[in-house]
Amino acid sequence: MSNKADSGKSYHLQCTGVAKETADAHNAAKDITLFGSCFCPFVQRVWVALEYLGIDYKVRVRLYDEVDPYKKPADLLEVSPKGLVPALRLENYNPPRAVNESTVILEFLEDIAASTTKRSLLPPVTEPYARALIHLQADHVNRTLVPAFYRYIQAQDEEKQIQGAKDFVEAIHGLIKLFQRAEKEGESTCGLWREGGTLSLADVVAGPWLFRSTNVLVHYRGFAVPAGPQFRAYLDRLFNYPAFKRTCSIEDLYIDSYERYAHNRPNTSQVANAINAGTTLP
Amino acid sequence: MSNKADSGKSYHLQCTGVAKETADAHNAAKDITLFGSCFCPFVQRVWVALEYLGIDYKVRVRLYDEVDPYKKPADLLEVSPKGLVPALRLENYNPPRAVNESTVILEFLEDIAASTTKRSLLPPVTEPYARALIHLQADHVNRTLVPAFYRYIQAQDEEKQIQGAKDFVEAIHGLIKLFQRAEKEGESTCGLWREGGTLSLADVVAGPWLFRSTNVLVHYRGFAVPAGPQFRAYLDRLFNYPAFKRTCSIEDLYIDSYERYAHNRPNTSQVANAINAGTTLP
Repeated sequence: MSNKADSGKSYHLQCTGVAKETADAHNAAKDITLFGSCFCPFVQRVWVALEYLGIDYKVRVRLYDEVDPYKKPADLLEVSPKGLVPALRLENYNPPRAVNESTVILEFLEDIAASTTKRSLLPPVTEPYARALIHLQADHVNRTLVPAFYRYIQAQDEEKQIQGAKDFVEAIHGLIKLFQRAEKEGESTCGLWREGGTLSLADVVAGPWLFRSTNVLVHYRGFAVPAGPQFRAYLDRLFNYPAFKRTCSIEDLYIDSYERYAHNRPNTSQVANAINAGTTLP
Repeated sequence: MSNKADSGKSYHLQCTGVAKETADAHNAAKDITLFGSCFCPFVQRVWVALEYLGIDYKVRVRLYDEVDPYKKPADLLEVSPKGLVPALRLENYNPPRAVNESTVILEFLEDIAASTTKRSLLPPVTEPYARALIHLQADHVNRTLVPAFYRYIQAQDEEKQIQGAKDFVEAIHGLIKLFQRAEKEGESTCGLWREGGTLSLADVVAGPWLFRSTNVLVHYRGFAVPAGPQFRAYLDRLFNYPAFKRTCSIEDLYIDSYERYAHNRPNTSQVANAINAGTTLP
């Protein structure tokens, strides 16, 4: 059991490190504005996809200096009815339109890239089975791995933390099993699990939580990242993949920002509340 | 409050009515075999999509005469590791391959249709925003409406049933709001909410639970289906849409099959267990 004292740290408002450089390089008006916050893994998904797909975007300047997603400023509510980030504002409509929900945004960006940059996080549409293998991985991440992460980091007593670790490791093993199946059956090299593979939708949806498991969970829960050499090599490829790396702040930012979760402080976030209530994530 | 006595009825093993005719017409070997059970709404999604997209398929004969998804026969486990239906077996591989999870199967069938029948449950890929509107609806159904349905039907005491009704109605209103937004903003006529529209992915993912709300929830919970004329007209179009109607058994089959849920009998299903445990649906 690992329970550090609650030092009362709050989440950061500005990106740091490489992510700050990337944000600074995207502060000019474009057709797409990304509303986000610097520590949020759902936002990071969208940011990585924008970088990888080569779609022009502006990062909302408030992302890293003043937006508080929990205070829900009016311009955020206009693009996201629940006040949740990530959200895209589409400036080429009058009045501007919006897309929210990270998984919906990812499909939207895929569709845009199909007719512009021709890049993709999926095998080509002419390979439905290879695409289904990636979608199965992404589905597992969304429905099993992500909720398991929050149950683990929010667990306060020893028994629940042990169960939390067990469930999270099981979720990782489930993902590895699906990666291995794709490696065995897939005709495509989409996915970083294989050396020489390209970034996949599943890598993008899993990456932010896998990354936070190696810093936040290690710090607050003494989490032992599964040590198999193939998995370690995968994480190494993923975390150093340019589109991913460009969205990462310095690790301290995440450790500070997740102290609220690690102590399960009341009203930490809508995600944390949903985990405590045993309902679906918002 | 409405609590009928538990008469001990179990789920049906064979389709009835129009669904039985459709199943009988699809008992010859094809490249795709659908494994299912006759009352399962997740299976109905896939069945409707197969019918609408015009993809050749065989319905696994066991679907309607002997498969017990809860006893997990070996050939089902081969195509679905969790023993859950729906699952597709792809016979044109040696050994056969499989795709499971209803939402993943729906995307797989979309991809197949793109290069074969050219039919689609979505606006064309050249209209990313119109597609995002449908995906937002489908996401709301998967993450809010479907869990709300099960919490409502499984609620045993009065307070929880009242809350269950409230949450389910709120989920329906959330869907209507998204339909109205698409009607206002969308350039596409994909979706049955509009008179003259075509079947959408969102109609397919919502349809089976909306249908069961008008018979199962009415029977066991005295559910008052929202009475707005536009919503009623939508349900009417949906339930009478040929691809949907062809997968419907006679309503008694659903009422009988959901008695287990209405009394929250132990081990009713993996879905029911997940709702009771407050975890994500399997």
